Amino acid sequence: MKKVRFKAKVTYDGSGFYGWQVQPGKRTVQAEIERVLSQIFQQDVKIQGCGRTDTAVHAICYVFSFSVHTDMTPAEVMKATNSLLDKKIRIKEVSYAENSFHPRFDARKKIYRYLISEFNSPFLINRAWYICQKLNIAKMKKAAEYIVGTHDFACFQASGRKAKNTVRTIEYIKIKRERCCIDPDVKMIAIEVCGTGFLYKMVRNIVGTLVDVGRNKKLPEQIKEIIESKDRKLASATAPGYGLYLKNVIYKRAS
Amino acid sequence: MKKVRFKAKVTYDGSGFYGWQVQPGKRTVQAEIERVLSQIFQQDVKIQGCGRTDTAVHAICYVFSFSVHTDMTPAEVMKATNSLLDKKIRIKEVSYAENSFHPRFDARKKIYRYLISEFNSPFLINRAWYICQKLNIAKMKKAAEYIVGTHDFACFQASGRKAKNTVRTIEYIKIKRERCCIDPDVKMIAIEVCGTGFLYKMVRNIVGTLVDVGRNKKLPEQIKEIIESKDRKLASATAPGYGLYLKNVIYKRAS
Repeated sequence: MKKVRFKAKVTYDGSGFYGWQVQPGKRTVQAEIERVLSQIFQQDVKIQGCGRTDTAVHAICYVFSFSVHTDMTPAEVMKATNSLLDKKIRIKEVSYAENSFHPRFDARKKIYRYLISEFNSPFLINRAWYICQKLNIAKMKKAAEYIVGTHDFACFQASGRKAKNTVRTIEYIKIKRERCCIDPDVKMIAIEVCGTGFLYKMVRNIVGTLVDVGRNKKLPEQIKEIIESKDRKLASATAPGYGLYLKNVIYKRAS
Repeated sequence: MKKVRFKAKVTYDGSGFYGWQVQPGKRTVQAEIERVLSQIFQQDVKIQGCGRTDTAVHAICYVFSFSVHTDMTPAEVMKATNSLLDKKIRIKEVSYAENSFHPRFDARKKIYRYLISEFNSPFLINRAWYICQKLNIAKMKKAAEYIVGTHDFACFQASGRKAKNTVRTIEYIKIKRERCCIDPDVKMIAIEVCGTGFLYKMVRNIVGTLVDVGRNKKLPEQIKEIIESKDRKLASATAPGYGLYLKNVIYKRAS
């Protein structure tokens, strides 16, 4: 049997998992997928992911890759994997990849989605951040304009962390009103953030700060000062993990 | 303290409940709400609902009513109730009602929503009926036309049941393509059924039959024959309860 490399797109409900990355004694998405693949291929399969996701954070499309000795086609791998996986994890697509493909190092852009709900709907438990106050979207959009671009984002890195290089590029931030598809009476706000790279907890810190602008606790113009200060303490509290979704990962070639 | 009657609108995630109605030793939505109200008002509170919902069936807006001796305002009742209720049940609105108001007997129309998903998304577990086959919506809409109107719907009542009068009026059936608000890549079909009254399991039997038309297992024209036959065995299998939502109840006066 030849050795082949597969690339897979997976969606998962992060509630009940200690994030993506394998951790001893903890239930993680990576560990669950490796367990199933090792069972299918009857060999110890290690997978490479496109990055970490924290406890409770979800994925609409997370990309991982692995190499195995097999004659199975991508479609067969997908079917076998989905039949054995926890229902909270679903493979959306499997394809062949080049031997050199690495989901994390080859990623050009990542797109995150963050959901906020104006009502504490039973259908959005662990799926959206419930904020009872009406947010000022126009001000949030204005604040977001200061974030887009290439900046030193030290102010938005997780407190206590000190990345060597904290310069990153945010391509766009879209803020839209949406409705819950289960209960159309429930209004939501969806924030989409696209960037070439992110510091640890950066999206959740951006969302927390934008929400404070929407609540009129901060002015849109203050965002510029917060970024220039490079001081984590000037930005707002981190938004909860359960509202965050990795939406897509973009590679050089169409994926 | 005066005796007052309240009317409440409630939404609930039916998974984990044995339906609405109190049943000895079972966890039901009615029992959970009565437990909380009895605690708040320090008296044995019994509530009257707008009808039964089966195990796993959800509500976007279910209406119930109750009378208690209290000085609390509707807003205070809502706040106190939500603070003590299981998060899978949320009160959306509380108002005063006339003493004669009865949520079931005074209901003029009920609107149900049924969700079908084309992908087995982790975000739609217990929320939508997953059908891997692409459904022919045009044929389903044509089939629905035969159902709308006043007919003897004996063919759509739960098997084994024999209601005395099986004539009901369906005002409309809307079938629309929608997208999952969590994962916009996931396509759904939403079926909305409005009627002045429903037989037991009637909506789920209608949906099961429409889905068989969408799968090309039945022709739209056959629906006419199925209704005329008054034979439950000619209609299709009952659609699963977890895809069904009571969306609204309409009363004589604006509610």
